[in-house]
Amino acid sequence: MESSELTSMTLLELSGLIGRRQVSPQEVTRAYLERIDDLNPRLNAYITVTADEALADARRAGEEIAAGQRRGPLHGIPIGLKDLYETKGVRTTAGSKILADWVPDRDAHTVSLLRQAGAVFLGKLNMHEWAMGGTSINPHYGPVRNPWSLECIPGGSSGGSGAALSAGLCAAATGSDTAGSIRIPASLCGIVGIKPTYGLVSLRGIVPLSSSLDHAGPMARTVADCALVLEAMAGPDPDDPFSAGREAEAYSQGLDRGARGLRVGLPTNYFFEGADPEVAATVLKAAAMLSDLGAQVMELVVPAIEKTEAVGMPCLMGESYAYHQRYLRERPDDYGPQVLGMLRSRENLSAAEYINAQWARADYSRQFLSIFDQVDVMVSPTSLIPAATIESCEAEPTGFALIHNTLPFDLTGQPALSVPCGFTEGGLPIGLQIAGRRFDEATVLRLGAAYEAATDWHKRMPPL
Amino acid sequence: MESSELTSMTLLELSGLIGRRQVSPQEVTRAYLERIDDLNPRLNAYITVTADEALADARRAGEEIAAGQRRGPLHGIPIGLKDLYETKGVRTTAGSKILADWVPDRDAHTVSLLRQAGAVFLGKLNMHEWAMGGTSINPHYGPVRNPWSLECIPGGSSGGSGAALSAGLCAAATGSDTAGSIRIPASLCGIVGIKPTYGLVSLRGIVPLSSSLDHAGPMARTVADCALVLEAMAGPDPDDPFSAGREAEAYSQGLDRGARGLRVGLPTNYFFEGADPEVAATVLKAAAMLSDLGAQVMELVVPAIEKTEAVGMPCLMGESYAYHQRYLRERPDDYGPQVLGMLRSRENLSAAEYINAQWARADYSRQFLSIFDQVDVMVSPTSLIPAATIESCEAEPTGFALIHNTLPFDLTGQPALSVPCGFTEGGLPIGLQIAGRRFDEATVLRLGAAYEAATDWHKRMPPL
Repeated sequence: MESSELTSMTLLELSGLIGRRQVSPQEVTRAYLERIDDLNPRLNAYITVTADEALADARRAGEEIAAGQRRGPLHGIPIGLKDLYETKGVRTTAGSKILADWVPDRDAHTVSLLRQAGAVFLGKLNMHEWAMGGTSINPHYGPVRNPWSLECIPGGSSGGSGAALSAGLCAAATGSDTAGSIRIPASLCGIVGIKPTYGLVSLRGIVPLSSSLDHAGPMARTVADCALVLEAMAGPDPDDPFSAGREAEAYSQGLDRGARGLRVGLPTNYFFEGADPEVAATVLKAAAMLSDLGAQVMELVVPAIEKTEAVGMPCLMGESYAYHQRYLRERPDDYGPQVLGMLRSRENLSAAEYINAQWARADYSRQFLSIFDQVDVMVSPTSLIPAATIESCEAEPTGFALIHNTLPFDLTGQPALSVPCGFTEGGLPIGLQIAGRRFDEATVLRLGAAYEAATDWHKRMPPL
Repeated sequence: MESSELTSMTLLELSGLIGRRQVSPQEVTRAYLERIDDLNPRLNAYITVTADEALADARRAGEEIAAGQRRGPLHGIPIGLKDLYETKGVRTTAGSKILADWVPDRDAHTVSLLRQAGAVFLGKLNMHEWAMGGTSINPHYGPVRNPWSLECIPGGSSGGSGAALSAGLCAAATGSDTAGSIRIPASLCGIVGIKPTYGLVSLRGIVPLSSSLDHAGPMARTVADCALVLEAMAGPDPDDPFSAGREAEAYSQGLDRGARGLRVGLPTNYFFEGADPEVAATVLKAAAMLSDLGAQVMELVVPAIEKTEAVGMPCLMGESYAYHQRYLRERPDDYGPQVLGMLRSRENLSAAEYINAQWARADYSRQFLSIFDQVDVMVSPTSLIPAATIESCEAEPTGFALIHNTLPFDLTGQPALSVPCGFTEGGLPIGLQIAGRRFDEATVLRLGAAYEAATDWHKRMPPL
């Protein structure tokens, strides 16, 4: 089988081939490593490639499978890890200079789970410095380039994950999402990402940005692939104080139940305000298709939503500053100017301002969640705008437009998925966001899968 | 039946008489109102007595019961409400001057629930100003006096509730507990109080002190009475953002299962450090009795517990300051000097200090809760010391001794009960604290009931 055939397959397809022993994990891993060799110099998606470890793991996986000891659908599947997931023996930079040489002595809990499931790790994926900033360009490891247009950003902070998936440099990846960092690169790179419910996936061993908003989750090329990886990552972690103690479900089952019978909210306020016209039109077309597929799409007004920025930013700012306080004192020069400026602006936040924001957030969430009495999911553009150019972002970081529609679900803790739903005339991907009730990943993924099955956006590959 | 006989009965006994129509709610209510008339001038337990409303409610309850429409065990039972529970049409001071004339236009959610259960409200109970301060004396409504020794404090902040129950001025009362404010007056007044699991009882319509630590709960003269009131107060409240969404259980069932088979942790560190020798000896005797009753009492070392004050105080301080910020700006002269001083000392708390404390709290809770892998409950003195004199507290507020053993369970959110377990030579009550797993009120109450059934401390009445 051609190497480029392997790297353009979905995880599910690859998994089938591996399970039927039509291809070995080593062949697949080698195909991905070759493509990384070929394309990463241009895309800069990986900070660290662990080729030797990956090949060794792939060989072991192949031996186990040959011996009839297949662990499951992820066994032998090459995966990339966002570089803030701690990896035992492999440096974990969090996109920072401060941790440039840090080699953790343990795996993040989710990395252990993926390892147990038999995944093969290709390396550590580039990201925003400390996962911070809507459009910041990493000053230490260089910009990640969007495979659909190399002068554009991939979105962040999990930009390396988005670019690598879109370009076929891994079969799935991990991301993390505090204000949109899984869904934004999924949207801008034309791939799929889900931010699970707060507390469903362990945060232990993931470098924090803002602990009450941080979510770890999978990114992949299809909804089914995301579901498979989520199954392996989710579940209670008694050693993570933020774990909800909730068991993982069989998310990959029931994805074929279709859209019929689902009540889908289409917000008439906030979520389209300031949207690029092409983005708005494309997402409305996607909503119409959901209706064609049998979903009951109903317009609704989302309460409290206009407070998103006022409520969210002090929470995010307070917590990220608290984490960085010591580094800011000891190593201020090792920050890039954008992130340093953001953090410094947070120095004087008082406890009362932060607490008032958290209280406002509790009330905001209560009001927001009330709409899910009437609907099962809510759809919107993932980002208001498609990918901007790296040059324009270096000149003037765009503010709130990228996280405008994603931050609400970090605040409420609800699951939210981004699936590709079209392209701009210029050829840049557009994402459809589907959000559901807390711990109702199943319904979110089901609707995403129904939409995906009726379209072929996810099958397009960028012209590299 | 003699009026004093009625007011010295347990709620369960009264409820039985009312259910069998051997006594009417009006007779019972009148007996309590007479006793309040007689004793409240000395004890100062009530800020507001709502005699007319109580008699009207009692009459209606009597009519319903006579018509065969008995609502349940609380129907026609006279109850006192801590004066931070909002009551529609009845002023709610929170022990403050600022709210001295505030008449809410709604009931607290728990007040509605108790009303639906048929409870008759006798009035609003005195408390620390804004529920704040270990031994502060209310500067606006005067000190509550401990029925066991009138020159002593009843403990706080629910001091009116504790004194009223101990003196027979209500059949049950509500309290609230942020650092120990239900359990401390229960301990110092020789009655029973339970701080339920965080989020089990709605906080909506209860004037807050520190929202991540506030707990509402019942106080009564026996464990069974507490269980009955808790049944009525607990349960999900979709309009309370801090509600855990957890259904109430039949806490009053299964209280007779005894102590046999329960694993009881007796801490060898922290919980007896600085304890008054009489308190320590009495509580150890109570633990020995639990062993006699068939419980498996085992000594254990509680991890992380020495961090209680360092972890807890910034959380409490930050949140109480955030709530009071506006009043401090607009009406600083309407605070008493103790509370004003406490609040002012919190002005400069930064968001980072508060957040770091909340993170430390999450880790503290995780470590603390791990001991409940080995034991079902943990016992300790409720307070390290018995009631001090009002005079000594006015001169120098005692610091951490009263909340030393109670605050840990506000931080972890676990249920914790105080039951009377003896008296000092000077005749002051001593409380035994029993804490259990989150949402395992049933086991905590069961052990408390087993201990109570084997002793008669709860039957003693103060010599008034």
